[in-house]
Amino acid sequence: MSEYSEHDKQGRSVGLVEKQFFTFAEPGNEVVLESGEKLGPITIAYETYGTLNADKSNAILVFHALSGDAHAAGYYSKDELKPGWWDVMIGPGKGIDTDKYFVISSNFIGSCMGSSGPSSQNLQTGMPYGMSFPVVTIGDMVRCQKALLDHLGVVKLLSCLGGSIGGMQALEWAVRYPEMVASAIPLATTYKHSALAIAFNEVGRQAIVADANWNGGNYYGKELPRKGLALARMVGHITYLSDDSMRRKFGRNLQDKTAFSFDFGVDFQVESYLRYQGEKFVDRFDANSYLYITKAADYFNLEYQHGDGSLVKAFEKTQAKFLVISFTSDWLYRTKESRRMVKAMKKAGLDVSFTEIEADFGHDAFLLANDQLTKLIAGFLARMSKEIR
Amino acid sequence: MSEYSEHDKQGRSVGLVEKQFFTFAEPGNEVVLESGEKLGPITIAYETYGTLNADKSNAILVFHALSGDAHAAGYYSKDELKPGWWDVMIGPGKGIDTDKYFVISSNFIGSCMGSSGPSSQNLQTGMPYGMSFPVVTIGDMVRCQKALLDHLGVVKLLSCLGGSIGGMQALEWAVRYPEMVASAIPLATTYKHSALAIAFNEVGRQAIVADANWNGGNYYGKELPRKGLALARMVGHITYLSDDSMRRKFGRNLQDKTAFSFDFGVDFQVESYLRYQGEKFVDRFDANSYLYITKAADYFNLEYQHGDGSLVKAFEKTQAKFLVISFTSDWLYRTKESRRMVKAMKKAGLDVSFTEIEADFGHDAFLLANDQLTKLIAGFLARMSKEIR
Repeated sequence: MSEYSEHDKQGRSVGLVEKQFFTFAEPGNEVVLESGEKLGPITIAYETYGTLNADKSNAILVFHALSGDAHAAGYYSKDELKPGWWDVMIGPGKGIDTDKYFVISSNFIGSCMGSSGPSSQNLQTGMPYGMSFPVVTIGDMVRCQKALLDHLGVVKLLSCLGGSIGGMQALEWAVRYPEMVASAIPLATTYKHSALAIAFNEVGRQAIVADANWNGGNYYGKELPRKGLALARMVGHITYLSDDSMRRKFGRNLQDKTAFSFDFGVDFQVESYLRYQGEKFVDRFDANSYLYITKAADYFNLEYQHGDGSLVKAFEKTQAKFLVISFTSDWLYRTKESRRMVKAMKKAGLDVSFTEIEADFGHDAFLLANDQLTKLIAGFLARMSKEIR
Repeated sequence: MSEYSEHDKQGRSVGLVEKQFFTFAEPGNEVVLESGEKLGPITIAYETYGTLNADKSNAILVFHALSGDAHAAGYYSKDELKPGWWDVMIGPGKGIDTDKYFVISSNFIGSCMGSSGPSSQNLQTGMPYGMSFPVVTIGDMVRCQKALLDHLGVVKLLSCLGGSIGGMQALEWAVRYPEMVASAIPLATTYKHSALAIAFNEVGRQAIVADANWNGGNYYGKELPRKGLALARMVGHITYLSDDSMRRKFGRNLQDKTAFSFDFGVDFQVESYLRYQGEKFVDRFDANSYLYITKAADYFNLEYQHGDGSLVKAFEKTQAKFLVISFTSDWLYRTKESRRMVKAMKKAGLDVSFTEIEADFGHDAFLLANDQLTKLIAGFLARMSKEIR
């Protein structure tokens, strides 16, 4: 048993972990991005849990969503109260069992969590890139993760998985590097953003650039565009919840009051919750990264980028086995989009399992402890370990 | 036939109309609002179409939604290209037949369309009210419209109707003035805002107050909080459309381009559409009014304000006959909320008809030409004319 008591209910922890960094694409070897622009040197932040086995057949790559980081499991110190973001899933004896598997959790370029992004220093100017950082795609993120795996000596992934933008990376990996990916688990995700998803992202971006402190992206070391980024997060948060979960969580409950305030302060708990989520986010996230990552998600289009407009053709590029999971109350990436994807995978002759999990928490359901999700993932990985040798 | 050819397809127009104003609550006679604050003098902007018959039995009161105005039908001048906002419904021979009915279209307090609101001049200071304008409720709006009807000599409404916030006014009228309201048609509305609806409104309000130009509401005659109000409108517009209508209207279509821009300009048509809607709105609407009206909608709660927490009890206060209409793709005020309302009306022993109209245009469907809607309203009004004498 781990010594981290709050966590013991969920199973053992991987314990103390350390964020690591891999830097490549040094001058002269810059990566040419999908936009045609060059980027280098590039740093990727990552963590690993468990041990790569002798025949290197137990590696699993985990991807985080928009605002996450490489810290998926364990603790950075004994004083830390909260473990990594997917600690309910990753650890000894858990859904992704680190006694069996070697888990790599990778941050992506464009982020502000240790990998190269708009807040990183541009070596040529000695200043943060800001908006001179090139626009990156999910494909660019995945190509940089491929360099990381080469560096780690991992030549084959037993599986790769993640939710939301993390699921897009899983799909991109399977199609872009078919020889490396034995299986993939896209969770609560889509193969291309709907107009609705693009619309919400666009509002978030406009909220950031409308903030006078944004200043064309040159705010590092100055006043941050706090209000704009907080607004973007508020809009995002609405889309992560569901109508039902909001009704149950907040309803029309009033905040600290028995009657209306008749002013423009906080009346309802849902208002307080959203303001708090917005405020909290600003302390840990970079506004420019929010612009870049949402743009990458909006650009993502598996059928266009890999199948000349045909999703079936895109999936014909891979032999990966798939476990696709959606959640009933996710209205950002709806089950019908997952079903469309599953249909195309089957038409492409792939081995695919699909489950829609009954969950009331909207899009965010994939992040929460869920026995069904844990069992599905554990079972799929066990099957993959047997079938793929 | 009207001479306004573009409109002839829809039927005859009421022709040239004039916005009128009624002012009351002069010093010493101020209205005490639900907040306990006093307001006066109060001006209400309104229009009328058709003629009040001898026994005063043919009056219909029409309410507009958040950003509308009293100009529901006809033209202000022969040069005007667009008629009033519900001209498809109101006119000679139309769904609300002005050959038969005397139609009053009323603006509400808090608005910026001619009625008293935050942009009006405070006579005590000689300056616009700004945020010193008291917070008003749907109940306050309706009480001021009652004063208007008294002024017009209308003692009984054959019907009253409107969509969205207009539907809230129809419900409030029926319950608050049961002796005056023979029937009501709440369209695409709810008896209380859900947490989701409050959440979207709160994001809109925060976008406005986050704009440095908002300046505590004191921006009249200075730089307007254009960016904040445009953002609020963008968020609103997403909720007025539906996932399907956006998919059909925009999909992932690119704007003026065959490839991604790889910058943060407009890539997708949906982005361009939202930016345009935001920009256009700022030219015609007051940011403070947006704060006040959305707050009134969030506060609206028929069961709490009129039924001590029971919707049935609230409806027991009226004898009005109801036609309730919802739209399949409206995800802001869902059909299930209308059904809950209809159930309570029936439990209260009321005569109520309910129809869910199949429409792909989301919440905004109630504003668009729709044969089924026109026929339902025309039929209901004809029945009311016979039954209520």
